[in-house]
Amino acid sequence: MSNKATAILLISCPDQKGLVAAIADFLYQHNANILHADQHQDAELGLFLMRVEWDLSGFDIDTSDFNNAFSPIATRFQMQWRLATSAHRPRLAIFVSRYDHCLADLLYRYQAGELNCEIPIIISNHTDTQWLAEAYRIPFQHIVINKDNKAEAEAEQLAILRKNHVDFVVLARYMQVLSPDFIRHYPNRIINIHHSFLPAFHGAKPYHRAFERGVKLIGATSHYVTEILDDGPIIEQDVARISHRDDLEDLIRRGADLEKIVLSRAVRWHIENRVLLYANKTVVFD
Amino acid sequence: MSNKATAILLISCPDQKGLVAAIADFLYQHNANILHADQHQDAELGLFLMRVEWDLSGFDIDTSDFNNAFSPIATRFQMQWRLATSAHRPRLAIFVSRYDHCLADLLYRYQAGELNCEIPIIISNHTDTQWLAEAYRIPFQHIVINKDNKAEAEAEQLAILRKNHVDFVVLARYMQVLSPDFIRHYPNRIINIHHSFLPAFHGAKPYHRAFERGVKLIGATSHYVTEILDDGPIIEQDVARISHRDDLEDLIRRGADLEKIVLSRAVRWHIENRVLLYANKTVVFD
Amino acid sequence: MSNKATAILLISCPDQKGLVAAIADFLYQHNANILHADQHQDAELGLFLMRVEWDLSGFDIDTSDFNNAFSPIATRFQMQWRLATSAHRPRLAIFVSRYDHCLADLLYRYQAGELNCEIPIIISNHTDTQWLAEAYRIPFQHIVINKDNKAEAEAEQLAILRKNHVDFVVLARYMQVLSPDFIRHYPNRIINIHHSFLPAFHGAKPYHRAFERGVKLIGATSHYVTEILDDGPIIEQDVARISHRDDLEDLIRRGADLEKIVLSRAVRWHIENRVLLYANKTVVFD
Amino acid sequence: MSNKATAILLISCPDQKGLVAAIADFLYQHNANILHADQHQDAELGLFLMRVEWDLSGFDIDTSDFNNAFSPIATRFQMQWRLATSAHRPRLAIFVSRYDHCLADLLYRYQAGELNCEIPIIISNHTDTQWLAEAYRIPFQHIVINKDNKAEAEAEQLAILRKNHVDFVVLARYMQVLSPDFIRHYPNRIINIHHSFLPAFHGAKPYHRAFERGVKLIGATSHYVTEILDDGPIIEQDVARISHRDDLEDLIRRGADLEKIVLSRAVRWHIENRVLLYANKTVVFD
Repeated sequence: MSNKATAILLISCPDQKGLVAAIADFLYQHNANILHADQHQDAELGLFLMRVEWDLSGFDIDTSDFNNAFSPIATRFQMQWRLATSAHRPRLAIFVSRYDHCLADLLYRYQAGELNCEIPIIISNHTDTQWLAEAYRIPFQHIVINKDNKAEAEAEQLAILRKNHVDFVVLARYMQVLSPDFIRHYPNRIINIHHSFLPAFHGAKPYHRAFERGVKLIGATSHYVTEILDDGPIIEQDVARISHRDDLEDLIRRGADLEKIVLSRAVRWHIENRVLLYANKTVVFD
Repeated sequence: MSNKATAILLISCPDQKGLVAAIADFLYQHNANILHADQHQDAELGLFLMRVEWDLSGFDIDTSDFNNAFSPIATRFQMQWRLATSAHRPRLAIFVSRYDHCLADLLYRYQAGELNCEIPIIISNHTDTQWLAEAYRIPFQHIVINKDNKAEAEAEQLAILRKNHVDFVVLARYMQVLSPDFIRHYPNRIINIHHSFLPAFHGAKPYHRAFERGVKLIGATSHYVTEILDDGPIIEQDVARISHRDDLEDLIRRGADLEKIVLSRAVRWHIENRVLLYANKTVVFD
Repeated sequence: MSNKATAILLISCPDQKGLVAAIADFLYQHNANILHADQHQDAELGLFLMRVEWDLSGFDIDTSDFNNAFSPIATRFQMQWRLATSAHRPRLAIFVSRYDHCLADLLYRYQAGELNCEIPIIISNHTDTQWLAEAYRIPFQHIVINKDNKAEAEAEQLAILRKNHVDFVVLARYMQVLSPDFIRHYPNRIINIHHSFLPAFHGAKPYHRAFERGVKLIGATSHYVTEILDDGPIIEQDVARISHRDDLEDLIRRGADLEKIVLSRAVRWHIENRVLLYANKTVVFD
Repeated sequence: MSNKATAILLISCPDQKGLVAAIADFLYQHNANILHADQHQDAELGLFLMRVEWDLSGFDIDTSDFNNAFSPIATRFQMQWRLATSAHRPRLAIFVSRYDHCLADLLYRYQAGELNCEIPIIISNHTDTQWLAEAYRIPFQHIVINKDNKAEAEAEQLAILRKNHVDFVVLARYMQVLSPDFIRHYPNRIINIHHSFLPAFHGAKPYHRAFERGVKLIGATSHYVTEILDDGPIIEQDVARISHRDDLEDLIRRGADLEKIVLSRAVRWHIENRVLLYANKTVVFD
């Protein structure tokens, strides 16, 4: 949350001896002042994952030269890696249908400076949330979707995303299923909020089914969207206790608070480059 | 938790006007000093559920005459009802396999006076937990179960339950599936602990599947056993947060703490006549 | 959350036999269709507290005649009682300083229909939040407060409250201490949010002190304001887990989410007449 | 939780560039296979804290020579450091008075293999828990304490601790205040469980005071014992929701479950060398 210009290096590679020494030595040789470093080893998969963040003041490699300087180490250890800088604010498009609680929550956090991103566009298949977009002065695009025009509608959405140089998409209670083709344009860069504790109650009407089943806690799950519905890597989940005194409307109202919290955490972690993917799971470096 | 002799009346009937007035007036006419009363209306099903507990000192109906005295009201309102008294300690049989954490927890709570019941017998298909039974001085019966003798083994179990006048059964990580025939002997009187947040990960190896799915919370669920596996009315659930730093062994260890808490709550609530069933759900009057 | 016209009766009196029978019979005689009823007995204090809500359609007493009809019972049992109807939307004034997260949250919930009240006025000693008032179209009054004009400022605030027929006040991170005189105008009708788990860290800068003390959970508390700072009856509290990875800014950011949830619950419960006071505590009928 | 022989290095020193590189290079040069590494920087205090665990198979320095080999780095960076090996099971003495729930919980976890320690002795000022010591076959020493013999009693306790080569002490609801002199023998090696959410309700009778104050959550706190009562570095805390339906006995019963969980976590983390102290706080590396 600091105002310093920082760089973040995310690494994923086969685990082996000397890895940390090589990375730490590289950063030291180039005068990096490390602010945070976190790593994870998955013993079973023999995988090494790391997130390291350093102060750019004093660091003697220009961001544009980093690739050249780092590639010998990256090659040696067969790394998948990515460099991000706090100066680059990723560009987020929000998709929404009629429920506006997640949208309102994200917009409030955005204007409060909690989300270090740009929001160039809100896209909706309804006009119910246009007032919110206007209150927060975000461009709003209404694109009708029905069973006959889905392909064209998605083409139009994709064109808008391209035009706005969108880096990732958040489905803030967007009630349409995206086509596999759409998803392939933003692999692991579409975040959804599902209103249940996945894998329980995947699919439609989770609150109704939770109410019917008589569960004692309700949940919400944010995850990356993959081609299989509600099956992508989970970023965050949370639950709230309910009782027999809560009717279906209470579940929906109380779930809305969960959804807001769980989605906003996932979005923030994604923006702060805290999420690493492996084996259809996430590591969230905190 | 008091030492007073009390009576508890549990009622379930179609909701209609005058119900509470009739019950409250009946208790007042017979000089009952009400200690706790709780009721629930399910608007959708038109159902009324009530639990009322009163001090027996001063109450002018003998327990054995209660049926006669109350039946006019019960008939008028088509009640299903049940009277319990704190003087009657229900008799509990614990079934267990090899994992002993739930058994150890229940036995500790039992001897500490937290569970107002008798435990005349522990039945296991292994001998691993016999030392615990001995430490707490509870009779222990080892009944081997294999794929060839299941029917006889269950017959033997049922004979032991009958001989011990068992009121209800707790499956404290009992790793055998009970037959429908067995279950029919104790309808809504067998409590199981399942090591997941049902309906997620019903069936075998829930921690393995939770680990593989990459969930961010693990759970445990206590429920009444019905003929459909892991589908009976849920009494209690709880969850614990995990992270990528937790491996499968950590999940199992941390889940064990959840299982103990969730099962012991269900058992206590059942003993204290706090659980009412309807529509494959429970109302837990607290 | 239903649209039915309902009445809510809140009762507090010495516990004695026949109470519930008398109330239930009264409601039955006048053809009330009870929707929810909840009661609580404090054995130590010999106190009986009740909340009962019924459908007004069919009820044969006009609200204006209720007092006459009910007073014989109220007198007989020495009741303190209050009747509320869902038709009356209480009028809420929000006081706020610079932090706007609680205000934004309340306004969103208000416009979403989650809070069954009117908000005729927002009063602030700063102008930072005026844009929010405008976005949600609520009148906003800026009243400067400094160490020299406190008495006049409060007089001005009170005049505005009177003019707007305000029923209760919410301090949504209002950073001024109200005078005892001000508080006496709205006894148990001013709700504050304190950013700690009271009674820990009462007074100033609770997040700083929580950070310094090294607690593992942070909290928030909503309570009625009394003349002793941060000492009034607690309506709701909640906590969030933190770790050494969270710095002071993280505590403040994460605490803000707690504050929003905890304050909005308290406000909703107050509006829905769920809160009963006794012995500097609250009963919250859910 | 693995059976491998591992070493754990805990480091605390002023933060400076090159630290991680130097440590990682040292371990790499000596062929350490790092299993877990976690570090923390406190920006405000300019402090660096690290825990690194590696597999001893293949590591080419004998534990007894580690000091010599590592001291050049330690000196260069002004480190406070400590090496622990999984082969050394620390020796724990449990102090207990009458309440036995924490003792029973620790003993169960100990025999289940959850706590990688030895428990050579249980010391109590009462005999109530002797049966538990016997059931788990741990030596039990009864030492009466009254207002006249406190100094001698503590001398006797210390002698027993010395004779049993005790590494650390757990106060499992031990209702005596230890003298500063006693505490100085085991600095940051005495763990207490306090039955409140510290700093709320420090001192005597926290449940009574929580009940009186009308809090909506109760808590428990495990901490290292320092000379100021209930003021030492907090290791772990947790809370449970209560309501007006819970009387004082319910708080005590429900709090007992919290105390068990919170204390057992602290004891395990201490045994696994996960706790680092600074500025009267703890870092718990998970």
